[in-house]
Amino acid sequence: MPGPIDGIKVIDMTRVLAGPFCTMTLADLGADVIKIERPDGGDDSRAFGPHQNGESAYFMSINRGKKSLTLDLKSEKGREILIKLVSQADVLVENFKPGVMKKLGLGYETLSKINPRLIYCASSGFGHSGPYSSRPAYDLIIQGMGGLMSITGPDASQPTKVGSSIADIFAGVFSAIGILSALYSREKTGRGQMVDIAMLDCMVSILENAVARYTVSGVDPVPIGNCHPSIAPFSSIKTSDGFINVACGNDSLWKKLCEIIERPDLAADARYETNHSRCEHMPDLLPALNESMRSKPSAYWLEKLETGHVPAGPINSISHVLADPQVLARNMLVELTHPVAGKVKIPGSPVKLSETPAEVKLPAPVLGQHNEEILLKLGYTQQQIADFKSTRVI
Amino acid sequence: MPGPIDGIKVIDMTRVLAGPFCTMTLADLGADVIKIERPDGGDDSRAFGPHQNGESAYFMSINRGKKSLTLDLKSEKGREILIKLVSQADVLVENFKPGVMKKLGLGYETLSKINPRLIYCASSGFGHSGPYSSRPAYDLIIQGMGGLMSITGPDASQPTKVGSSIADIFAGVFSAIGILSALYSREKTGRGQMVDIAMLDCMVSILENAVARYTVSGVDPVPIGNCHPSIAPFSSIKTSDGFINVACGNDSLWKKLCEIIERPDLAADARYETNHSRCEHMPDLLPALNESMRSKPSAYWLEKLETGHVPAGPINSISHVLADPQVLARNMLVELTHPVAGKVKIPGSPVKLSETPAEVKLPAPVLGQHNEEILLKLGYTQQQIADFKSTRVI
Repeated sequence: MPGPIDGIKVIDMTRVLAGPFCTMTLADLGADVIKIERPDGGDDSRAFGPHQNGESAYFMSINRGKKSLTLDLKSEKGREILIKLVSQADVLVENFKPGVMKKLGLGYETLSKINPRLIYCASSGFGHSGPYSSRPAYDLIIQGMGGLMSITGPDASQPTKVGSSIADIFAGVFSAIGILSALYSREKTGRGQMVDIAMLDCMVSILENAVARYTVSGVDPVPIGNCHPSIAPFSSIKTSDGFINVACGNDSLWKKLCEIIERPDLAADARYETNHSRCEHMPDLLPALNESMRSKPSAYWLEKLETGHVPAGPINSISHVLADPQVLARNMLVELTHPVAGKVKIPGSPVKLSETPAEVKLPAPVLGQHNEEILLKLGYTQQQIADFKSTRVI
Repeated sequence: MPGPIDGIKVIDMTRVLAGPFCTMTLADLGADVIKIERPDGGDDSRAFGPHQNGESAYFMSINRGKKSLTLDLKSEKGREILIKLVSQADVLVENFKPGVMKKLGLGYETLSKINPRLIYCASSGFGHSGPYSSRPAYDLIIQGMGGLMSITGPDASQPTKVGSSIADIFAGVFSAIGILSALYSREKTGRGQMVDIAMLDCMVSILENAVARYTVSGVDPVPIGNCHPSIAPFSSIKTSDGFINVACGNDSLWKKLCEIIERPDLAADARYETNHSRCEHMPDLLPALNESMRSKPSAYWLEKLETGHVPAGPINSISHVLADPQVLARNMLVELTHPVAGKVKIPGSPVKLSETPAEVKLPAPVLGQHNEEILLKLGYTQQQIADFKSTRVI
């Protein structure tokens, strides 16, 4: 079945994560994505381990469904080919440092003259304006600068980075939002535009209640472990073999929890009578809960809590996530057969549409896999393609 | 200037975070969003502290740019009004537990018959299919079940929740992606469809290299603090007044770092000669760096590192983020005047578009602020509206 943006042509000049995550999302939604790669090695992330039969598992997961065309953009011929592609494209996505595309003669001003319907999305660390615009950025640095690390961690002394590259990934999804809204707008105006996404902007936009709390109170929020700032107990609790999460949103769930862990003394304790008082006495309450639940394994408690209708859940390792019946039922783990790597398992698309479903259709390309196909379509001859190859244009 | 989806009519039946984050994004992009709220108190998050002149700072930040209509959906009249709205709408977003809308007689099957162009987006914890579909979900529980907590934290013994409600927020942004792509598709097909977004699916889709590493190696990744699994030093380092992030992606940056911290002994140490050997000896290397940098404050080191072109950055508190020149230059902190709360500062939109800019236009509504305006437009009389009020339909 066709996806919602079936047939939209995307030129993907991105590497590693933020940009590729965006074009992966567009490919899943039905776009034809042509990934432009350096002839010598391609996307840096092709070198990121672990590898499976020499193919990077990381690269393969984020570049499924795309075609690969190698192009040396420093050569005149390479730029000529790119401009031919741009003249027929709907969208171009790049995640170079601001200024690089312009230096190559491929800036938005130039390309939008060639194709006024082009939607040009630039994804960068700090964006195409502002005093830090030209600085390099890495996910770690943006998570730190954007404030997320200052509110994540076991306590105030241990600011903590999120375990996946959230700053890159949010830039990827907000890029997709910008492009999709610009595609809709183009249906009305007939014109494309520039989408300028900064990892730092994205971080600021997802700080959630931390900003509200600070702007009203003037006090900087700090990491508070796995607790909730205003509901208790709403936290991770230690069991004999790990942790589970328990979420008691009201007094009756709290009483129920005390029953399940056989602690009538806690239920009767005046310090823990209301949500407000439980929040206040969390430094006493959490150790008491840890002590009670440490006697039995997570699975035991989760079953008891489910039976008692107390919201709770495991802290799943990746292996558990990927074997979870709900994850499998929702088609969130997809198996593809890659021409070199063989069978690979990658996450599916979380965008579930009833009529034009997103789909993970094809494995990631090997470097330059679609050179001939794409160049022939552009009108180049077999002889020209052979010349491009021997002169290292492709 | 009009936004990219200017004039798109959104019925917003969401509360708290995942749904409201989605409809906020749509409002910023130009949609007319009507938020449907319970007459007795409205969106639960109106009660979330801190409050400013009695208005929740949290609610105000996520509901800017929307209109509020109170409706008792358990009353026949309330449902009648909702159906009138739906018949003129482009999009409906809800984040009830699966089944609730159907029970109210407002399920997708029913509403799509009334308005076949309707795009109906349901955002829930586990989605509208699969064995856990009807379970309640909280951000904490989904972060745990989805694997993100198992790879976040200082070390393997401390799985850690991200400090903002990432599972809710990702569901919000992927909902926006689903809706925008369905809007584009409707331009071609003339028909709406259902978008079914699950917080758990979203978590699986952003686990990044953890999935690749596990599927190839069969070994579960664990939290590794603020270090990088395969680049070193690429980590937070202790200073006299906090931490900074330092990212040495290659050997020459490493040598430069040793110069700046005046540790020629480290530069000469065979254990730290290559990136590979530095990764292997990170348990020795990190304490050595902490020891060296502990002597001076963060600001001192950041200046030295910037001058030496070694990528580095602060771990900003929220107050620093909101005063950062780049954040301000990118218009990521917006001041609005709320009719009751007065001046409020909220994060801006990270979707920067050149021709149809996203904009934070209006403050969040007070409960039922737009009842009269909306109902008059639907053709109800002042008398009918007064009756709705006295019978608590609105």
